[in-house]
Amino acid sequence: MAHSINLAVIPGDGIGQEVVAQGLKVLTAVLPQDVKLETKQYDLGAQRWHRTGETLPDAELEALRHHDAILLGAIGDPSVPSGVLERGLLLKLRFAFDHFVNLRPSKLFPNTATPLAGRPDIDFVVVREGTEGPYTGNGGSLRTGTPAEVATEVSVNTAYGVERVVRDAYERASSRPRKKLTLVHKNNVLVYAGHMWKNIFDKVGQEYPEVTTDYLHVDAATIFFVTQPERFDVIVTDNLFGDILTDLAAAVTGGIGLAASGNINPTGAFPSMFEPVHGSAPDIAGTGKADPTATILSVALLLRHLGHEAEAVRIEDAVSADLAERDGTFRSTDQIGDALAARVAG
Amino acid sequence: MAHSINLAVIPGDGIGQEVVAQGLKVLTAVLPQDVKLETKQYDLGAQRWHRTGETLPDAELEALRHHDAILLGAIGDPSVPSGVLERGLLLKLRFAFDHFVNLRPSKLFPNTATPLAGRPDIDFVVVREGTEGPYTGNGGSLRTGTPAEVATEVSVNTAYGVERVVRDAYERASSRPRKKLTLVHKNNVLVYAGHMWKNIFDKVGQEYPEVTTDYLHVDAATIFFVTQPERFDVIVTDNLFGDILTDLAAAVTGGIGLAASGNINPTGAFPSMFEPVHGSAPDIAGTGKADPTATILSVALLLRHLGHEAEAVRIEDAVSADLAERDGTFRSTDQIGDALAARVAG
Ligand SMILES: CC(C)[C@H](C(=O)O)[C@@H](O)C(=O)O
Ligand SMILES: CC(C)[C@H](C(=O)O)[C@@H](O)C(=O)O
Repeated sequence: MAHSINLAVIPGDGIGQEVVAQGLKVLTAVLPQDVKLETKQYDLGAQRWHRTGETLPDAELEALRHHDAILLGAIGDPSVPSGVLERGLLLKLRFAFDHFVNLRPSKLFPNTATPLAGRPDIDFVVVREGTEGPYTGNGGSLRTGTPAEVATEVSVNTAYGVERVVRDAYERASSRPRKKLTLVHKNNVLVYAGHMWKNIFDKVGQEYPEVTTDYLHVDAATIFFVTQPERFDVIVTDNLFGDILTDLAAAVTGGIGLAASGNINPTGAFPSMFEPVHGSAPDIAGTGKADPTATILSVALLLRHLGHEAEAVRIEDAVSADLAERDGTFRSTDQIGDALAARVAG
Repeated sequence: MAHSINLAVIPGDGIGQEVVAQGLKVLTAVLPQDVKLETKQYDLGAQRWHRTGETLPDAELEALRHHDAILLGAIGDPSVPSGVLERGLLLKLRFAFDHFVNLRPSKLFPNTATPLAGRPDIDFVVVREGTEGPYTGNGGSLRTGTPAEVATEVSVNTAYGVERVVRDAYERASSRPRKKLTLVHKNNVLVYAGHMWKNIFDKVGQEYPEVTTDYLHVDAATIFFVTQPERFDVIVTDNLFGDILTDLAAAVTGGIGLAASGNINPTGAFPSMFEPVHGSAPDIAGTGKADPTATILSVALLLRHLGHEAEAVRIEDAVSADLAERDGTFRSTDQIGDALAARVAG
C-alpha cells in the first residue's frame, strides 16, 4: 500500500474533463488522511493538437513515466482526423508503458437498466491483451487513393506477449470464487495466431489445475454475451477481440456509463493507466449529462492496483448502493460525483 | 428466372445433413412444375477427410463450378483440427468462387424469442465482404511452439475488393424503403484499411444521393446491436467484423436457428453458395432437435439469387406465418420441414 500517490491526470477531450473531476473528488474523499495525494494535470488531446500539432511529446511521455499511476478521461474529437489522437496519444501511452493487461470488469449492478430481458446475473472480467494484435500499427497502403490501392493491417502476436497476459488471467481466475477462464479467439480462421494462443493457453493452464477452462470463437462469444452472460467468469483475449467484446459487455451491463478499465503493467516497471471505456462523447460535453460512474469505478481499479484494496471496495460498494437507491430522477455529472464522494467518506 | 436449376448439395457435418434434407424438401415443394430441379450431392466434410485426407480435391471444385448454385449445410467437427475444414473447404469455396458478397439478413420474426427486452423492431441486412480482410490466409508463424514464437495474421484489403462490395451494399440500400447504409470498421486504429474503406464508401456514395449514410466503429456497432438495433437498415463491413456482427445479429433476432446467409458472386461468373449461419452442432446431431429454418431461409436467398423472387417470398412468408402460429410445443427437424413444405406448396 502506497502512503503517497503521485497521480498524473489526463482529462482529455469532451466529457473527459467533467468525469475526471468527479473521479478526483471521490478519490480525495476515499483516501485516508495519512495518504498524501499529489496530482499533476497534463494538457493532452484535441485542443493541444489543434494549438501545437503535438499529440504526446517525448518530454511529457518521460514526465508521465515518473508518476505512480495515470487517470485518463477520454481522448478524441470529430475535428481531428480519425486515428491521430488514438494512435498518437492513447495507444502510444498503452504501448510505451507496456500496458499488456487491459482489465475490464463487467457487472450488472442492482437497479440498472440492461437491454437484456430477464436480467441475467452478470459478473465477469475481460483480460484484454493491450500491446499486440492488430493494434501494433504494422500495416501500410500502396498506391493510396487509386483504384489499385492495397491496404494491409498486420496482427502481431508473440509467445512472450501472449504468455504473460494469459498467465495474468489465470492468476485472476484462480483468485475468484468460480475459478473459470475462457479463451476467446478465432483459431479456425486466424490459424497462426489462434493456434499459438490456444497452445499457450493450454500449456500455462497446467500450472493452474484448479481453474476450469473453455475456448470460444469470438463470433460465438458474442452470442453468449447476450444469451448466457452468466456463464463467464474471466475471459482472456486479444487486443481487437477484447475491444469489441468489452463494448458489448458494457452495453449488456447497463451501458458504457458504468464500464471501467485499467491499462495495467503488472510488473510495476511503468505507471498503469485507468480510464472509463466510454469515449469523449462530444455531443453531450458541457451539458452535465455525462455519467462519471465509469471513471469513479476506474479510480477503484487504480486504488486496487496501488494496494489500497479497502478503499477500492469502498468505492465499488458506494456505486452499488447508489445505483440500488436511485429513483430515476435525472442527476447531473456533479450530483452523481457528490453523492458518491459523500458515500465513500461516510 | 431459370427454368431449370442444377443444384450442388453439400450436406457436410453434424446437423448439416438433417437441415439440408429439409431445405431440399421445401425447395421441391415451392418450385413451379415447369422448373426442372436437378441435384447432385457432394460428400465433403469431416468424414471424407478422415477417410481420405481430402478436403476439397480439384476435380470436385471443378465439378461444383458447373452448377447454378450450391446449398451447404454445415462444415466442422471436433475430431478434425481447428482450421483444416474451415480453410480447406468452406473458405476455399468462398474464395475459389469469388463470393465477395456474404449476405446475411437479420429480422426479428413474430413470436420469436429474443434475449432483448422490449422486442425492438429488427430488420436489417449485413453485407459482409467475403474474399479479403484477415481471411486470406496471409499469415505465418516463426519459431513455432518455442518461447520465441511470433505469429502474424495479415488483413489484405484492395480498392478493387472493397469498391465492389460497397457498391453492392449501396444497390441493396437504395432498393429498400429506408435507404440507409452504415459502414462498420475500426478506422481509428486500423488506419490503413479503415481509411481506404471509408474513402471508397464516401466516393461510391456520391452516386447514390438517395442513400443516407453513417459510419460506426465495430465496438460501438455491437452496442447499438443490443440497445438500438432498429437503427440499422443495410450494413457493409469487412470479412472479420461481418463474421462477428452477424453472429451477434443472429443472437438478438432469435438465435442462429433462424439466420440464413448467401455467399454470392453477383457477376454470375461462379455459382453462389447458400448456407445457414450456424455450424454443425455435433452435440445435437441426429437427435432431431436441429431447427432447419435457417437452411430453409437460405433456400429463399438462393431462389431470389436465381431470379425466383415469388418463390423466395413464399418461403419467407411461410416462415413468418409458421413462427407466428407456433405454440411452444417441441417440433422435430422433420416436422418443421414438413410444416413449411406444406405451407409453400399450399
Ligand atoms: C479509442 C480506441 C483507440 C480504443 C481502443 O480501440 O482500444 C477504445 O475503443 C477502447 O476500447 O479503449
Ligand atoms: C466456420 C467459419 C470459418 C465461418 C467464418 O468465420 O466465416 C463461420 O463462422 C461463418 O460465419 O460462416
